[in-house]
Amino acid sequence: MLKRYLLAPGPTPVPPEVLLSMAMPIIHHRSPDFLPVLDSAKKGLQWLFQTKNDVLILASTGTGGMVGAVNNFFNPGEKVLVINGGKFGERWTKICQAYGLRVEEIVVEWGYSIKPALVESALKKDSEIKAVFVQATETSTGVYHDIKGLGSVIKNYPDTLFIVDAISALVAEDIRTDEWGIDVMVGGSQKGLMLPPGLAFVSVSDKAWKKSEASKMPRFYFNFKKERENLAKNQTNFTSAVTLIIGLNEAIKILQKEGLENVFKRHARLANATREAVKALGLGIYSKESPSNSVTAIEMPEGIDGQLVYKTLREKYGITGAGGQDKAKGKIYRMAHLGYADTFDVITGIAALEMVLKQLGHPIRLGTGVARAQELLME
Amino acid sequence: MLKRYLLAPGPTPVPPEVLLSMAMPIIHHRSPDFLPVLDSAKKGLQWLFQTKNDVLILASTGTGGMVGAVNNFFNPGEKVLVINGGKFGERWTKICQAYGLRVEEIVVEWGYSIKPALVESALKKDSEIKAVFVQATETSTGVYHDIKGLGSVIKNYPDTLFIVDAISALVAEDIRTDEWGIDVMVGGSQKGLMLPPGLAFVSVSDKAWKKSEASKMPRFYFNFKKERENLAKNQTNFTSAVTLIIGLNEAIKILQKEGLENVFKRHARLANATREAVKALGLGIYSKESPSNSVTAIEMPEGIDGQLVYKTLREKYGITGAGGQDKAKGKIYRMAHLGYADTFDVITGIAALEMVLKQLGHPIRLGTGVARAQELLME
Repeated sequence: MLKRYLLAPGPTPVPPEVLLSMAMPIIHHRSPDFLPVLDSAKKGLQWLFQTKNDVLILASTGTGGMVGAVNNFFNPGEKVLVINGGKFGERWTKICQAYGLRVEEIVVEWGYSIKPALVESALKKDSEIKAVFVQATETSTGVYHDIKGLGSVIKNYPDTLFIVDAISALVAEDIRTDEWGIDVMVGGSQKGLMLPPGLAFVSVSDKAWKKSEASKMPRFYFNFKKERENLAKNQTNFTSAVTLIIGLNEAIKILQKEGLENVFKRHARLANATREAVKALGLGIYSKESPSNSVTAIEMPEGIDGQLVYKTLREKYGITGAGGQDKAKGKIYRMAHLGYADTFDVITGIAALEMVLKQLGHPIRLGTGVARAQELLME
Repeated sequence: MLKRYLLAPGPTPVPPEVLLSMAMPIIHHRSPDFLPVLDSAKKGLQWLFQTKNDVLILASTGTGGMVGAVNNFFNPGEKVLVINGGKFGERWTKICQAYGLRVEEIVVEWGYSIKPALVESALKKDSEIKAVFVQATETSTGVYHDIKGLGSVIKNYPDTLFIVDAISALVAEDIRTDEWGIDVMVGGSQKGLMLPPGLAFVSVSDKAWKKSEASKMPRFYFNFKKERENLAKNQTNFTSAVTLIIGLNEAIKILQKEGLENVFKRHARLANATREAVKALGLGIYSKESPSNSVTAIEMPEGIDGQLVYKTLREKYGITGAGGQDKAKGKIYRMAHLGYADTFDVITGIAALEMVLKQLGHPIRLGTGVARAQELLME
């Protein structure tokens, strides 16, 4: 018997009560049975997004929400600024280009976070920039970008939308959609929300709705105006992913019981313990600035292949984390502490990492990282 | 206690073993755990679609598959022919127009099916037509279109794709994708496949892949070329809807145990019994030609409001069917016999309909329809 542990930055484990809620008999999405379900889900999402704006619910992965964040607000040829500090930053660029936008990038070195002042000078220099796209957490590097700082810059530009991919950050970070002036924020089900993949969430500000009126990009499935009209009637534009939305309500119930502030504190605590344990083992954190509370990217020692660490953890210990992507492949191993995660997920993840590194020949005193995590998690 | 019965033409009931399979712990979509799951799903779909072509698996509702069937194969300004015989025919037109295609429609009166000869003369007259779009089953009218007949016409036009929305028809009708020359066929999870909403399936022929090479429509989420490349590696382009795909394998297992021919026979038998029971009650079938094996659209007697029948069935008897849409609203009540359906779903649906019609003042001898259904279902 090999017990399995999922420590990847999405999909993440789903609590048993959520899994079981989704095993209830199917209800019809246009029937009165479903209306209170959707009503509850949309209010729960507003609570989680810290917004009074509508939060649309789409039957797609998070990337579908990102596509909608591009093709509902612009026209081909418009110029936008993308902060590209990793694989998901690149994705913003690719989506914008697929829809004919002119993309200017601020390339941020992998492992570093954007300086809001760079965005400010870009916006000052070029009044054509219609939006700034960024990740809250760049999952590939484990960096959390300064969303608050960016918001305080962008809100001085009334013709520029602030568009945030918070797919990996939501639940793990205290992101204040309205207070910080985020116009469009995208979330996904399979990360902090502790749900299976299959739902995207998108909040849209008044400023963004206004800009969307002039947008003539082709769209049908991700048509935010139609989704908004349906949401007002507690429906979705097309067939609702009813089981996932029922699960969403269960997951939100769990988070509400804990309280939003405690949810953020828990993630910060687990992330901090993970990082300190890693340092106690003499390993480096790949995120040189602003490490995220969702996932920790751990630098592998000289001569140790991160992909082999990932593979050995899976095969020998039943633990599924994540390796590095693209240029970080082999150099890092990523361990999430996101969603349905507690003290002993961190302990398990660190203990197993120690055992694998030792097995692969790296000199490690077993228990060193675990002890540091224990110390911090007892506080 | 009010026991609930779902007799709507999607979502349909999900078998308990499928629901429970989806309550298993989450696995990671890029890990070796998932590869055999996707491999099994793609082979199962080929069996169900009766095709050797790849069947793509998308995290979206069926409509997402329809959008992909438009925006992967054409360029703005190209002309296509849409067979519009109901609400979902209209949807093809709207999607094609959203992506800048020039749409020529053959409007079919609601309740009637397309004559392939009409399509033949349209194609003969106009060599610019790059595709014919149709529903296999037009859910709004309960009509099954002659897909075989259309295929035998369209296959003589090497520059014209045959694109079929089989979302409601799949599993209920024997549709031979390869034999009949269907280039692109779209299915959805929440119909005959007995799954929750959230997955679309699309088969693509070599002819269609070839045509897709020249297509320059903006696309990112529904990018079939990328999906195909990922499918070859037993992956999907973006995060796989892992729980639904696990459920898909369970559902296909159930269908494979029954055997495809028996699955079609069961649907034909249930549909026939439903129609004959309706006639025995003196009611008309709204589908004047080629009634579908997925859903029966029942004409309401003079003075009886179909919406009230729908509502009373729900509130008094716990049965969720479907009313009419748009111009058929109030005039019909629709009862599905699709997916996880057997003899006693038909008996229940007909018995309840008799009781509600009697209650609403229509002269009905209770048991008349039920007896006719029993007679046919005993054979």
